[in-house]
Amino acid sequence: MHGYPKPFRVAFLGPIGTYSHQAAYDRFGPCVEYHECGTITDVFNAVSSKATHVGVVPQENSIFGSVTETYDALRVRDVGFIQGEVVLEVQHCLLVRHGVKQQDIRTIKSHEQALGQCRGFIAKNFPSASLEKVASTAAAAEAVLTSSDSAAICSKLCATVFDGLEILFESIQDQTSNFTRFYVISTTRDTELPPPPDPIPGKTRCLIRLSSRTDAFPAPAITQLLTALAIPVSRLDRRPQLENTRLFHDVYFAELGCGESDSDAWPADIERGIERVRASGGEADLLGLW
Amino acid sequence: MHGYPKPFRVAFLGPIGTYSHQAAYDRFGPCVEYHECGTITDVFNAVSSKATHVGVVPQENSIFGSVTETYDALRVRDVGFIQGEVVLEVQHCLLVRHGVKQQDIRTIKSHEQALGQCRGFIAKNFPSASLEKVASTAAAAEAVLTSSDSAAICSKLCATVFDGLEILFESIQDQTSNFTRFYVISTTRDTELPPPPDPIPGKTRCLIRLSSRTDAFPAPAITQLLTALAIPVSRLDRRPQLENTRLFHDVYFAELGCGESDSDAWPADIERGIERVRASGGEADLLGLW
Repeated sequence: MHGYPKPFRVAFLGPIGTYSHQAAYDRFGPCVEYHECGTITDVFNAVSSKATHVGVVPQENSIFGSVTETYDALRVRDVGFIQGEVVLEVQHCLLVRHGVKQQDIRTIKSHEQALGQCRGFIAKNFPSASLEKVASTAAAAEAVLTSSDSAAICSKLCATVFDGLEILFESIQDQTSNFTRFYVISTTRDTELPPPPDPIPGKTRCLIRLSSRTDAFPAPAITQLLTALAIPVSRLDRRPQLENTRLFHDVYFAELGCGESDSDAWPADIERGIERVRASGGEADLLGLW
Repeated sequence: MHGYPKPFRVAFLGPIGTYSHQAAYDRFGPCVEYHECGTITDVFNAVSSKATHVGVVPQENSIFGSVTETYDALRVRDVGFIQGEVVLEVQHCLLVRHGVKQQDIRTIKSHEQALGQCRGFIAKNFPSASLEKVASTAAAAEAVLTSSDSAAICSKLCATVFDGLEILFESIQDQTSNFTRFYVISTTRDTELPPPPDPIPGKTRCLIRLSSRTDAFPAPAITQLLTALAIPVSRLDRRPQLENTRLFHDVYFAELGCGESDSDAWPADIERGIERVRASGGEADLLGLW
């Protein structure tokens, strides 16, 4: 672990066997201590209270879109700093208790994102099944351990983690390419992380929170803030402000990227862009650099 | 009805008593025919199949954010044209069957947005109640008609629409200002609508769908498309592309506004902006003008 404080602690959206667990494991491997959390908000709380060094939270899925609970947490000041990302290919499976057959299934349980990602498969193979949203894909797997008429949509990993389950169908998502991207959130900007399995020299991505100042009148439009930033943005997401003093007042999250060869000069470029946004009547904060 | 074809038909997200119903009624009044739909997608289908002249769909809530199902429908070509908006102040109430008391309540039912908007009230007054997501606020009201231990979060209107319910608490949303904004979708761009109760001279808002062309390499960033558009954007939302040929390839929805005094020249300005986006390697389509 290269001299990092031990045990290095990693919070993830539990229970064990979720895709978040798999993403955390892909990044941090077997030599750290993992902490299950019940919700995405709990992962952020584990990080900001320094109960763990880092947390792994889903940011977006290639079919279903961005994860609003993650962006909502990022509206708040000082919840942590993004220091990395993990992209995971999601291969949903349909798991049942040993011996349960396709024709026995009346209910399909999963997280709502997974149910959404398998709509076509469900409509074709289980048109009359009722769907039950549960807190996570792994919670669904656990729930079907004691059921003779339900199935869970979850990771293949769950067939290993939970004794007594078997895989009825594999790769059941509607699109063949289904990826989920996760952010690695650290306690502070200076938290040192174990090196990733495939290290990239330098920092090539960042996330900036943008909004108009509440005292700015007229409030600058998002296009004016982006013009002031003057750096190409690769992703832009909008959420309502928490301080709801003005109707439909928004906060935006802009993700930016650069090539590896440009990564040395880039952090300073970003700081200058943020200063330009502030000078133009906007608020801008660097939420991550990785 | 000023010579418009009769009956003028309006689809809304039912059942009767939802906020969508109230928004539709606020805009179109008593002299049109209303059609309940089960989902937002069904409202869009009613419009595109010409079963109704218009549809009213929620676009965003000031606390909970944008309605992804509406934006997802708008990813598809020719689902309709936005010809108006309605902003409705949402005042949630807690309704029960006549005679049910606060201490009897074990379950609180509502649409997930309404449950989200009343989180603080629920935590304070019903910390141990279980929450049940149902398809609409009005469906929740209907469900508690036969229950002695549950309550519904819904509009005040439901106490009138459903016999046998009474209001236990009023204005229970977490923020005092809670507004939902709806789009009025018409069958075609040329559908003539009855005049609104408070007519605005000219068109002062529009919605444009933006994405990079799938054959553009490198794909232009959203900031490059906005620079080409060169008109200030008041709202910008991102959803994954339906044609998932490239990983994390996005479609953006840009809402633009102008002052009433500028509204004559504005449609031509927008057309020129759209042409500039197309010339820069982007796709751009006008989804509405109102």
